[in-house]
Amino acid sequence: MAIKKSNLRIIPLGGLGEIGKNITAIEYGNNIIIIDCGLAFPEDEMLGIDLVIPDITYLKKNAEKIRGIVLTHGHEDHIGALPYVLKEINVPIYGTRLTIGLVENKLREHNLLRVVKRHCVSAGDVIDLGAFKVEFIRINHSIADSVALAIHTPVGVVIHSGDFKVDFNPINGETIDLQRFAVLGSQGVLALLSDSTNAERKGYTMSERTVGNVFEGIFSEAINNRIMVATFASNVDRVQQIINAAHKYKRKVTFIGRSMLNVVKTASELGYLDLPKDILIELGEINKYRDEELVVIMTGSQGEPMAALSRVASSEFRQLELKPGDKIILSSSPIPGNEKTISKVINELFRKGADVVYEDAHVSGHAFQEELKLLYSLVKPKYFIPVHGEYRHLKHHAELVMGLGMPKENIFILSNGDILEFAKNSCKIAGTVPSGQILVDGLGVGDVGNIVLRDRRHLSQDGLLVVVITLERETNKVIAGPDIISRGFVYVRESENLMDEARNVVKHSLFECEDKQITEWAQMKSIIKDTLKEFLWQKTKRSPMILPIIVEV
Amino acid sequence: MAIKKSNLRIIPLGGLGEIGKNITAIEYGNNIIIIDCGLAFPEDEMLGIDLVIPDITYLKKNAEKIRGIVLTHGHEDHIGALPYVLKEINVPIYGTRLTIGLVENKLREHNLLRVVKRHCVSAGDVIDLGAFKVEFIRINHSIADSVALAIHTPVGVVIHSGDFKVDFNPINGETIDLQRFAVLGSQGVLALLSDSTNAERKGYTMSERTVGNVFEGIFSEAINNRIMVATFASNVDRVQQIINAAHKYKRKVTFIGRSMLNVVKTASELGYLDLPKDILIELGEINKYRDEELVVIMTGSQGEPMAALSRVASSEFRQLELKPGDKIILSSSPIPGNEKTISKVINELFRKGADVVYEDAHVSGHAFQEELKLLYSLVKPKYFIPVHGEYRHLKHHAELVMGLGMPKENIFILSNGDILEFAKNSCKIAGTVPSGQILVDGLGVGDVGNIVLRDRRHLSQDGLLVVVITLERETNKVIAGPDIISRGFVYVRESENLMDEARNVVKHSLFECEDKQITEWAQMKSIIKDTLKEFLWQKTKRSPMILPIIVEV
Repeated sequence: MAIKKSNLRIIPLGGLGEIGKNITAIEYGNNIIIIDCGLAFPEDEMLGIDLVIPDITYLKKNAEKIRGIVLTHGHEDHIGALPYVLKEINVPIYGTRLTIGLVENKLREHNLLRVVKRHCVSAGDVIDLGAFKVEFIRINHSIADSVALAIHTPVGVVIHSGDFKVDFNPINGETIDLQRFAVLGSQGVLALLSDSTNAERKGYTMSERTVGNVFEGIFSEAINNRIMVATFASNVDRVQQIINAAHKYKRKVTFIGRSMLNVVKTASELGYLDLPKDILIELGEINKYRDEELVVIMTGSQGEPMAALSRVASSEFRQLELKPGDKIILSSSPIPGNEKTISKVINELFRKGADVVYEDAHVSGHAFQEELKLLYSLVKPKYFIPVHGEYRHLKHHAELVMGLGMPKENIFILSNGDILEFAKNSCKIAGTVPSGQILVDGLGVGDVGNIVLRDRRHLSQDGLLVVVITLERETNKVIAGPDIISRGFVYVRESENLMDEARNVVKHSLFECEDKQITEWAQMKSIIKDTLKEFLWQKTKRSPMILPIIVEV
Repeated sequence: MAIKKSNLRIIPLGGLGEIGKNITAIEYGNNIIIIDCGLAFPEDEMLGIDLVIPDITYLKKNAEKIRGIVLTHGHEDHIGALPYVLKEINVPIYGTRLTIGLVENKLREHNLLRVVKRHCVSAGDVIDLGAFKVEFIRINHSIADSVALAIHTPVGVVIHSGDFKVDFNPINGETIDLQRFAVLGSQGVLALLSDSTNAERKGYTMSERTVGNVFEGIFSEAINNRIMVATFASNVDRVQQIINAAHKYKRKVTFIGRSMLNVVKTASELGYLDLPKDILIELGEINKYRDEELVVIMTGSQGEPMAALSRVASSEFRQLELKPGDKIILSSSPIPGNEKTISKVINELFRKGADVVYEDAHVSGHAFQEELKLLYSLVKPKYFIPVHGEYRHLKHHAELVMGLGMPKENIFILSNGDILEFAKNSCKIAGTVPSGQILVDGLGVGDVGNIVLRDRRHLSQDGLLVVVITLERETNKVIAGPDIISRGFVYVRESENLMDEARNVVKHSLFECEDKQITEWAQMKSIIKDTLKEFLWQKTKRSPMILPIIVEV
């Protein structure tokens, strides 16, 4: 296929609070490739929402141009929106073996396994996608089989770092392919999109292996006790290190938590997890073993109320009751926003007599400043686009590379939806496309918008009052009511007087309507609402939602 | 008055998640003194709640025994519940000048200034309160004029550290009176109640003065820009240091935020804040000055959406619009739970082109491990009671002093409501009294309980559906409806089909009732509710609150 001359465009499309996180489009003429396809977890004010996925209006409009979805790794914020997006745009997906394995679990749940084309690639592979050649480059991250991408376009090479860190002693797999970045850099790279998550943190991340040493220390000391470790299910290397320590100290291992069981199954089937013979036991078998023969690995290290650790802490697991002396390791650090929930779980565990360790048993999967400088210096791109982070992180990342000599005008801090367009010898933000968040609530995708959320917020603050009035059709006379029902407003049994008074206030409004010969329902409702609102505010300094309902018979 | 021989009791009564934080009772025979009387801020799941105050059932029952309320310092979590408690139990209050000054602001707002007796004390003073002598001991903390208490009881001395740190170079006032703690210790102390907030942090807190050095550095560099500092209003010494830097660099100062203005007024009237002549200007005057002549000091360093910093960030202040180059210092660190909100404000400030500094411009007001060891070692009490902290902090504090030789059986980690009773040569938890949280919502104190909160949570997750049916009294025939109104459930305009179907489901339930000759309203409502719930769950995987209302005419 002859490729028409055109401009290259980079369009970050998703990421809640972060930029270019969940999904990014790369476009050249008649060709679009999508990098990652992830979801975000709802913010506190998104009441009742389960998931947040990116707005793909632009991609749907240009569906015929899309050559495929290229995945950097198997974390939820990079693959979690696939089932939703693939239902709208069914294009082939490309990723490494573990990534595709995890994607397949998802597709199976959504009955999409038969209809979606999947291609496994390995680090070092190059695939043709229309006008693009996409090269997969080995990196390190907190999930195995993660890659960066070098996208060879007709106007130059664009490197997307994915989520990365530099680990010279990784557990499973090899060190980030620094040489390849350097070779590409020496040949000339048009643009580098680089992970900014830890751009505010000085120095280097520690190697994943250091966590193994911490486990070793704890296992060698806790010689009479059960050991439980909560960590991210997807961190296969972390799980491997726990298993290694268990094996060394002759302990059996059992897993709790649905996502933990899923990931372990997939990872061990694909050979990313090495389980010594007979080390696994079922949760139901733990009573057959002495405390010092057991390790329990579970989800819930972020204090999620429905995950294993919280349920163990609150004694909801019949099969696993905490006892004094239990050693519990939180092998994680709090994702911002989860600090309080985690602290509650820790308090509960201590209260039950457990010995809780929550320091030093974790390292980050994202590059710190020195690693960011290293990648930048190997690649030496013409243009630099910090991605994966909140604005503050991108800003710091930009300053970091300015400190390495990158001219300010060659750095672009984008917003989601921005079109970054590369023309001959120039680069600019050339417009925007629709972007934003689509809220998923139960089976509803996008049916909860601002109005529904505003109502939920209102209801959550002061509850509601329903006022029901029945009018006679011909005469417009009140023949039943006003009846008032409240929920979430006051404790009704102790507020009977208030409710009686409220009824009188409504009656009074109705008399007023009669006097003024107001018979329009909308107007009547609005008078009732305003009067009642004012009355309740005076009495309680609260503003519940007021729902006047008029029935005519 | 002859004092009848009796047992000494210590009863921590308040603190949301923390133990012995907001209010503690000390009892001997016919005498009770109350230490502090603070409030807590609601947790996330306490929807719509403004404040949380301690349950004082026990104190109300024993009101005639109460000799007074003794205050350690003027922070909200130590004085904020006073207006509520004093309305129930009017007893004299004792505190240092700044503390009483801040309390008076509160009493004025609640029209209590005339009816409540206040006594100003100074560090070193000893007052008689029934069976007790209460001695005030100078300490350091993040608000001026903070004290610890030595309570001389008929059975020994109890020391309560208050919130404290050790600052050898305090800004205003003197260093913690280590000598007095040592003398009391050498004479024998029965029990030490000690601040555990930072019991997990190694080393020493930095001196407040180090923050001043950071300000100096920033002021000396930002020679062409406006400087804005957000900090805790109550940290008078911090505000003083900002003013000192402003004075040195010949800048005018203006304040934003109601609590900032209140505290500054009280503190400067009482001589705790030294304002150089003509340094203050009104916010409205800032346009008369060049950028490099201005410092704005404001509230909102925790990202509170209604406080000054957030409002400045979101351009809600007509008088103070951000511009590129503005230097903004967050002189605070996030209180756990506020990380995300603060991060949002920081992102917004950066996006507006401001240069934001949020590291190194703060020190904690609570002792770290080495300081905790110091206080313990000076006092060498017989019994040790870690207080002011979540369970994890108390646990670590207990382990810390065990490491210094304190026997485990002489350490008591209490829960709120526990009665710790000291008999001759023994000490034990001798029972409990009612304790817990009273929720304040608008004017309502305690009228929002578990049922109301449960309803608010339910409404917040999936909204509600109101189903109205009108029956004819004699025949029980449906003569109007079912009508369905929803809020916070789905976007109605796009869900008309769903609503039509829901109406049919209700109609069907009504036919069923007719067939089975069910005429009891309660039973009819329950059938409607269950059927509709099941239908909506199948269709949407959501469970809105369903409110069936039957009207009879």
